[in-house]
Amino acid sequence: MSTNVIAHAALAESLRALYAPIAEDLAQSEQILREEMRSDYAYVDELVRYGVMLGGKRLRPALLLLAARATGEVNRSHYVLSAVVEMIHTATLVHDDVLDEAATRRRLATVNSRWDNEASVLLGDFLFTHAFYLASTLETTYACRTIGRSTNIVCEGELRQKGSRGDFSLSEREYFEIIDAKTAELCACACRLGAHYAGGGESTVEAMARYGRNLGVAFQIADDLLDVVGHEGTVGKSLGTDLEKQKPTLPVIHILQRATTAEKAQVLEILEGDAADKRDLLAPWLDRFDAVSYSRKQARKFAAAAQEDLTLLPPSPAVETLRRLTDFVVHRSL
Amino acid sequence: MSTNVIAHAALAESLRALYAPIAEDLAQSEQILREEMRSDYAYVDELVRYGVMLGGKRLRPALLLLAARATGEVNRSHYVLSAVVEMIHTATLVHDDVLDEAATRRRLATVNSRWDNEASVLLGDFLFTHAFYLASTLETTYACRTIGRSTNIVCEGELRQKGSRGDFSLSEREYFEIIDAKTAELCACACRLGAHYAGGGESTVEAMARYGRNLGVAFQIADDLLDVVGHEGTVGKSLGTDLEKQKPTLPVIHILQRATTAEKAQVLEILEGDAADKRDLLAPWLDRFDAVSYSRKQARKFAAAAQEDLTLLPPSPAVETLRRLTDFVVHRSL
Repeated sequence: MSTNVIAHAALAESLRALYAPIAEDLAQSEQILREEMRSDYAYVDELVRYGVMLGGKRLRPALLLLAARATGEVNRSHYVLSAVVEMIHTATLVHDDVLDEAATRRRLATVNSRWDNEASVLLGDFLFTHAFYLASTLETTYACRTIGRSTNIVCEGELRQKGSRGDFSLSEREYFEIIDAKTAELCACACRLGAHYAGGGESTVEAMARYGRNLGVAFQIADDLLDVVGHEGTVGKSLGTDLEKQKPTLPVIHILQRATTAEKAQVLEILEGDAADKRDLLAPWLDRFDAVSYSRKQARKFAAAAQEDLTLLPPSPAVETLRRLTDFVVHRSL
Repeated sequence: MSTNVIAHAALAESLRALYAPIAEDLAQSEQILREEMRSDYAYVDELVRYGVMLGGKRLRPALLLLAARATGEVNRSHYVLSAVVEMIHTATLVHDDVLDEAATRRRLATVNSRWDNEASVLLGDFLFTHAFYLASTLETTYACRTIGRSTNIVCEGELRQKGSRGDFSLSEREYFEIIDAKTAELCACACRLGAHYAGGGESTVEAMARYGRNLGVAFQIADDLLDVVGHEGTVGKSLGTDLEKQKPTLPVIHILQRATTAEKAQVLEILEGDAADKRDLLAPWLDRFDAVSYSRKQARKFAAAAQEDLTLLPPSPAVETLRRLTDFVVHRSL
């Protein structure tokens, strides 16, 4: 067994342990995903079923269910909505893989590499629209409104990120705004729905939403860091795509902020060039400006802010898992 | 002024005349589109505003508003929902243009040719999600459920169509099923919403939905016919893409059904080959099997079925426009 497979098994094991307080809830959520993600037409059915496997960590359904358990009782709405947020997340992943021209994700061939870009575009649309339909089967428009608004913010964030490709004058503030929209928003949405449908009052719902948002930002900083310094075999997806696509991420922004004019010119030559080994060329610059530890520190700051909001909730196994998740997203190596 | 521009102006003029009973309603709908389709971020804003222009005919908002006027009173919900169906339609167009690698649409450069495929994918997602958000601002989940279900059926239809690329054994029945899902479903949805929110009873709502469905099928048959025999300058969008992408459409299916084994082999050689002038090569075969007039006859059959359902409604200017629209979609040359 290769060390990569062991690392992956260890991740799965540690997530299983973390998710213990909601193991049965997650099983219900998976059941709904399996029931809903199918089609009477063989071609569509194969594609849609494959899509469901790509989500992997089930972080957003877990956040929704944990927020529910941390707040009150879990009910049928939570199971439906946890499947909904996973479908939306998967839709954005599938479309991201088109944009990034990525070949692997969670050790699986991406839809665009196994089928093609067209299949990815349509599968993403199928997932988006099915998620919205499923959300509308609940009694009130609360879920539709919350999910519709958040998902639209996610798309706007993705578009801003695309607009900022190759713009290495992007400020740290703008970077944080973008990851807040494209990643943290859906985590906040998941936590908000979990707390709301468990009967949480406004202050609890807002605290859970803030927790999700801060966790999401911490997660994305760590994810962006992996793209620059992670090992592809361990992480299980194509890396270096941010550099290749000239997306300014935190370590790079940090270097450029601190570099002298002359140094900046050298770094920009790497970033704007088309070398195949940008990660290697960038490595000494990351070291020189402590860019990795700076980025990790920022991720920890957001993780700490997320933990802060958990103190407003009565202690429970679910709250303890939410606390541990803040460490997990910062320290995961894959 | 070129004849194309005149033809286009004539279309605009004839649509303006047709839409007269809902001219003010459509203006309200446009106002909502303009208000909603914007962003605080310049790059996103430019893209989103451009997207709104691509829809062109505003057929789906018109159907919704006409169904409303034919049934009862028009209210604020109708304006919102007419903008919603146009956003969804535009989202599918923008994504279609990626799939078809089309360069022009309604005389405008497509998003993927003016920007790129990434921009198209994200703009389509932005439009989908904004449409769902807007639908969720109404009081009940009826609109969300109706739109969510219909849009998901549209996506499944698109996927089936993709799965049937190059499959020239596709039957006429399967072809009709596919266009029913990918095109007629959203027309039916628009009419259903219009009638429902105007207080129509179940039989009226169902009659309007059937009208929309039959009109949509007639429209798509005519549209597929244009791809094979229309003039690009007059129609204002890239043509021949169905043939290029090996999508089996009605005239082709009709030829293959009626041809002898030997003839079929010759036709398949054209269809499965990669000649640049497939339309020219196919022309004599269309003539030999009367494929164009056969397809037009089918379109007229669905148009007649659509008219049939209108007899259930009290006569009014809106009903008269709905009747004329059934002729318009079959006979339009652009």
